[in-house]
Amino acid sequence: MQGMSDADRLVDKVLAGDTRSLARAISIVEVRGGEAESILSRLSKHVRGSPVIGFSGPPGSGKSTLIGRIGEYLRGSGLRVAVLAIDPSSPFTGGAVLGDRVRMVSIASAPGVFIRSMATRGARGGVVAYVRSVIRVLDASGFDVILVETAGAGQTDVSINDVADVVAIVVTPDMGDSIQAIKAGLLEIGDVYVVNKADDSRSSYIASMLEAMLGRGGDRPVVLRTIATRGEGVDVLAETLLRKWEQLKADGGLQARRRRQNIAEVAALIMEDFRVAVETFSSDKEFIAEVERLVAEGLDPKAVARKMMDRVLEWARKI
Amino acid sequence: MQGMSDADRLVDKVLAGDTRSLARAISIVEVRGGEAESILSRLSKHVRGSPVIGFSGPPGSGKSTLIGRIGEYLRGSGLRVAVLAIDPSSPFTGGAVLGDRVRMVSIASAPGVFIRSMATRGARGGVVAYVRSVIRVLDASGFDVILVETAGAGQTDVSINDVADVVAIVVTPDMGDSIQAIKAGLLEIGDVYVVNKADDSRSSYIASMLEAMLGRGGDRPVVLRTIATRGEGVDVLAETLLRKWEQLKADGGLQARRRRQNIAEVAALIMEDFRVAVETFSSDKEFIAEVERLVAEGLDPKAVARKMMDRVLEWARKI
Repeated sequence: MQGMSDADRLVDKVLAGDTRSLARAISIVEVRGGEAESILSRLSKHVRGSPVIGFSGPPGSGKSTLIGRIGEYLRGSGLRVAVLAIDPSSPFTGGAVLGDRVRMVSIASAPGVFIRSMATRGARGGVVAYVRSVIRVLDASGFDVILVETAGAGQTDVSINDVADVVAIVVTPDMGDSIQAIKAGLLEIGDVYVVNKADDSRSSYIASMLEAMLGRGGDRPVVLRTIATRGEGVDVLAETLLRKWEQLKADGGLQARRRRQNIAEVAALIMEDFRVAVETFSSDKEFIAEVERLVAEGLDPKAVARKMMDRVLEWARKI
Repeated sequence: MQGMSDADRLVDKVLAGDTRSLARAISIVEVRGGEAESILSRLSKHVRGSPVIGFSGPPGSGKSTLIGRIGEYLRGSGLRVAVLAIDPSSPFTGGAVLGDRVRMVSIASAPGVFIRSMATRGARGGVVAYVRSVIRVLDASGFDVILVETAGAGQTDVSINDVADVVAIVVTPDMGDSIQAIKAGLLEIGDVYVVNKADDSRSSYIASMLEAMLGRGGDRPVVLRTIATRGEGVDVLAETLLRKWEQLKADGGLQARRRRQNIAEVAALIMEDFRVAVETFSSDKEFIAEVERLVAEGLDPKAVARKMMDRVLEWARKI
């Protein structure tokens, strides 16, 4: 018998700042299972609650470049920065044109910046939980800020507000019509709105439109303009996001947001467990025979599902 | 008191072949609820079990054009054809370049062809059930063949095998590498593999590669070549798909596939009910307070979820 398990050794290396071990720990956590739980449980007391800043916006809004620039800026202020990309079209995840990818690689190789992409497609209900587990690993391993990239609303399996403390929504000047169209959902999720590619002549119009849509009032979101490719406006944006986080921490808003994140995570985990139960149960011979009997009796699928729900619930209680 | 309800009247019109009523019935079924159930129940005895032919393949493979051509061909043989597009990037659903869309509209206005697109994004677990309900309405209203279009594997919320009896996988000659990469999943789902845009010089290479990957044996899938834009190979493809369906019907394979579809549908409906239960329950004050208490005690989210699962199951049994 050894006093120290593999999980112990891996966690020690993660805590010592070993990047390769960190990457491995994240891969284990992504897969789930017993080893993931033992790593997460060992890391839990090292979680410090670092700021998690989310960036959301449609493909082509330049948010990956922006995140790269913000990473460089924060790194320059001495902060350790992790980037977590959960947008399948992100250059971080490989869905990019060559130029972008080269650029991202150069950021990725900077010391003190760790970049990780996550595949969420197919993960279904549990995405929120997966993402939060990885964020927890990054936090425990000593990153001071975690930048999370997701695709725009409706294009991804995770709602950015369920995983990030402060949210920046990135748009471009050519998205005027789309912004109008999706405004209801869009205006609820951001703390900061970024009009990127601000060298476009339409950018002030879009910025004014956003400001008008966001209304007036003390706590309304800020609208900023950036040119990510040239790094313009990146410092102001980075500082605004961190300041917003500090303000939330001071006034209790952060606590409320993290409570909501916890609820979303627990709900996702419950759904995930139930999905596994249903999938197992629905390949069970008795289940199949019973469904076939009910269908043959002429019951419609909804009625069959209602009858079977009781069985599934009973069965799920036992496992 | 009237002897005939709104649902009765609508169903009568659907059965009489009124297209506008059919569109309305589908919209009601998509939304779910009591009215949907009453329409589905009234239509159920008119469901004849018409062939459901699925087409899957990545965006750009030309499957929409191919489906349009097959629709025209089948219509020409005197069959009533319905097209159900559940691919968000399909020109049928509006996600197309102008030329495509104009073309689809011309097919859509042909007599005896009914085209319908379904938005599945955000529907989550229940997509299989939604799609099968709409197929049932189309079938009951008298269509002889139902063509279903989905995006490629992993790009959509529904597995084509859960809704279609016979499946065609559409690829193009420029997808050689991708086919190699995804071959495991790809080779399990198709009855017919279509190399579209066969005027490309690489098409025979891709066709041979597919044939080699599919192996030998009596019942192995067929590989066909088409040029959808010119209508070439469409007749052979359409006849092959219908013949496959007839063969399955004769040898009992169709029955087995429809049983599997029923199981998938019932499982999806159970999941959907449970998701609604979890969403309701997780905004309940007591649930939130309990989660917060457990988190404050230092339990990790997985353990919290396990503890809360019992409560949710108990609660779900009561509703």
